[in-house]
Parts: sequence; structure tokens; C-alpha cells
Amino acid sequence: MTAADSSNGSSLTGSEKEGLYKAIFSRRDVRSHFVDREIPDDVLLRILNAAHHAPSVGFSQPWNFILIKDRAIRQKVKESFLRERSRSISMLDGNKQRQKQYVSLKLEGILESAINICVTYDPTRFGPFVLGRTSIEETGVYSVACAIQNLWLAARAEGVGVGWVSILANEDLEKILAIPPHVKPIAYLCLGYVSEFAEKPDLERAGWLPRMDLASVVCYEQWGVHDSKSWSSLCAIMGKMSEGNREDNI
Amino acid sequence: MTAADSSNGSSLTGSEKEGLYKAIFSRRDVRSHFVDREIPDDVLLRILNAAHHAPSVGFSQPWNFILIKDRAIRQKVKESFLRERSRSISMLDGNKQRQKQYVSLKLEGILESAINICVTYDPTRFGPFVLGRTSIEETGVYSVACAIQNLWLAARAEGVGVGWVSILANEDLEKILAIPPHVKPIAYLCLGYVSEFAEKPDLERAGWLPRMDLASVVCYEQWGVHDSKSWSSLCAIMGKMSEGNREDNI
Repeated sequence: MTAADSSNGSSLTGSEKEGLYKAIFSRRDVRSHFVDREIPDDVLLRILNAAHHAPSVGFSQPWNFILIKDRAIRQKVKESFLRERSRSISMLDGNKQRQKQYVSLKLEGILESAINICVTYDPTRFGPFVLGRTSIEETGVYSVACAIQNLWLAARAEGVGVGWVSILANEDLEKILAIPPHVKPIAYLCLGYVSEFAEKPDLERAGWLPRMDLASVVCYEQWGVHDSKSWSSLCAIMGKMSEGNREDNI
Repeated sequence: MTAADSSNGSSLTGSEKEGLYKAIFSRRDVRSHFVDREIPDDVLLRILNAAHHAPSVGFSQPWNFILIKDRAIRQKVKESFLRERSRSISMLDGNKQRQKQYVSLKLEGILESAINICVTYDPTRFGPFVLGRTSIEETGVYSVACAIQNLWLAARAEGVGVGWVSILANEDLEKILAIPPHVKPIAYLCLGYVSEFAEKPDLERAGWLPRMDLASVVCYEQWGVHDSKSWSSLCAIMGKMSEGNREDNI
């Protein structure tokens, strides 16, 4: 835990910076390629500690991490997945091509991964007055999602793959994991060492959806404004990036 | 954008790993210490590109980033903050000590920072069928929060401070930034170079709330189980960490 203790105002070196970007750009939502290898305690601790050092509204730290190895519990979660997957498939009855593509995708590694982690949100933590949560209640949940992203990046840095299974019923998770009514499950994650991290996200590679241009999700001063005098040089760079991408796609 | 292009399955070196942890542990929610220095285009692009490479449910990339420099717009946002802050203060009428402490805290840097960024969520992006969002609708919003955490860490690595202002009315933001009804503001961020990143979070340092023990937010196999045979070695380490922290606090 040295890094946590020695946090300070110093700047990152070139290769330290590169490390952060490498983790961000090569992080994948992993559903296959899990290998049969346990995650050592010290590695898991670093990953959990990274999650625990996420930002949280009013410093409320409203997260919990339920670590799961038990096969019987995982089997029940898998059954929830299978039910929800069936429901999703029938939602695509009107689009047979999309449905066929959906069916072909591997969407979870509940049983193949080394461990599962359910991350939850407790809105009562340090409440009822949580500084900064009085105007926008949902900021509590956002804090937990930030913790999940920290966990994901730390896992990537450790060579551990993470897959987020969202094709599940929260009511099932609440029952299976004995989560009390005031606590909300946010994510169900599968963690394990992997034989590889894919070059691109599975859904991009499979042609499910394309990566959007950065330029198309950025606007200036107000919604929908893609050109601005006070942002002229950035606008120009963004424009060139989009052109480059269009050429790539030809 | 080299790091994005060269993302692959390779592992991180020791100092690259250290870089990720340094960013995670020394990231701060910054409200003061902003210095008068512009953020160069290439730095801002790297930060935005890191956000754009967050995980998203069904690869839906449902985020937008509204970049704001305009003083008049910022002034309006500041007024929303002041109204919401007053509301919060009156909520503490029954606890004068806490109220006094709240009033003493600096909670935003809307006007002092170099730029503001409003991050939004568009649930219609690539919809209506978004893979993996059919069972748990909120996963779309969680994706945006993960993007915010990527942005925050990249900014930290670049020496840029980020402050998340949550004491705002979303209705005000929608009006001020012309955000359409189907899009939801998720975060209002203030970005700028800073003279320092504080050793500890402001609210921890000010004694508003303590950092929780990691052990107290981790459980095993089911909610509330803090001791488990199949997790005995991790339980033992967690136990020792908690004891250590208790001694620190004496």
C-alpha cells in the first residue's frame, strides 16, 4: 500500500504517465480468455484499495465489495444471467440478423473466472446529510461507478481481466447475496488472469457498433455547438481527427 | 493518441504500474489552488480521449462533453451553485456546529479554473436496444461515471486538477447549456492546472469524515459476512490492516 501512503502533489514521470494511458486504452471487458490461476492476496488487495480510493460525494465512500468464490452462489447468478439473456433475445424478435449476432456473442465469464465481485451502493452511509448530495441524489451512485472504474484499471495493470455482467436481475442478486433492502447492487464483476487482452473491444471487433469519433461527442459552450471562435484551434484539430477516421473507414 | 492506437495485450512495467496507482491515490477533488494557466489543446485532447475510452454498456458510448470557457455562462452556473448551497446550509439548521463547518468549506472553482466541462448522458444513443442495458437500465449512466473517472485520472497525470461541483440544480444546467430533454447532465467539472495536489482529500483533512478501513467495506460470499474459511488468508490480512489503522488513530 505504499503508493496510497505516499500520495502527494508530485508530478508523474513520462513512463508513469504512459502507464496510466496504457491501462486506460488497453482495458477490456473480458468474457473469455480466463486462465486457471488464482489471484494472490496482495494483488487483490491492491485492486480493492484502488477502488476504495475513488472520489465519493461528500467523502461518503458508499461502496461495498462482496467477494465470491463459492460455486453454488455463482451457479445461481449464472441462472439469472441465462433468464435475462433469453428475455433480451426475444426483444430482438423483430430483427433476426441482430438476434443471430446477439446469440453468437459470449457475454459473461461467471464460472470460468477466478472470482466474482458484486459492488453495491449504500445510500445510508454517513447519512442522512451527505455533503454535495443534497441537490443531485444520484451522485452517490456515480461515486460507486467511479470506484468500479478504478478497480478495473488497477486490475488491468495487474494483468487481471474484468468482465461486467449487466444481463442480470438485481432482485436475483439481492436474494442470492442477502443484500439488505436499503443497499443497491451496482455491478457484478468477473475477475481473473487472462491469456490476452484483445486489441479492440469485443463488440467493436464483432461489428456490433463502431467507435465514435471523439469530435462527435464534444461540443463548445452549449449543447450541439460543434464550432466556436473561442475554441478555434481545438475545433480545427478535432475536425482533422474526424477526417482521418473517415479515411480509415473507407 | 499513440497510446490509444498501440493498445494491446502486453503487460505494464513496474513504473508504468506505479504511474496508474500514483494517479489513483493522489487524485484530488480540487476546489482551490487553481493557477492562471491555459490547458494546451494536446493535453485537453488526451484527457478527453481517455474519457472516451471508458467502458460503456453495449459499447453505446452514451457520453457528451460540453467544454465551457465563456464567463457569462459560468457566472450563471455559479449562481445556481450559490442557491443550492444556501439550501444545503438551511438543511443543517438543526446542527449548528456542522453548519458552521459546512459554511467554512470551499466547494467549487467554477470561475477560477481554466475551463469547465459538463458531462452528459444520452440514453437514446445507438438505441432503443442497447446490448446489456435491457435488464438494468441504469448501466447507461454508470458508463458515463466511468468516463468521468478516466477523465479525472488522465487530468491528474497531466498535472491538471479537477473539481466535481454537485451542489447545482440539473434544471439550471439544462437551461444554461441548452441541453435537450432526452439528455441528462451527469457531472459539472472544473479543470485547471494547480499549484499543488493536497496530501489528503479536503473533507478528510478538515475532519468532516474519516477514511474508512478497507476491511469494513469488504465481505465474503454474501452481504455482511466478514469472516470466511475459503477466504481465510485475505481475512487475516484485512484484520491486521484494520488493527494498524486503529493504532494510527490513537
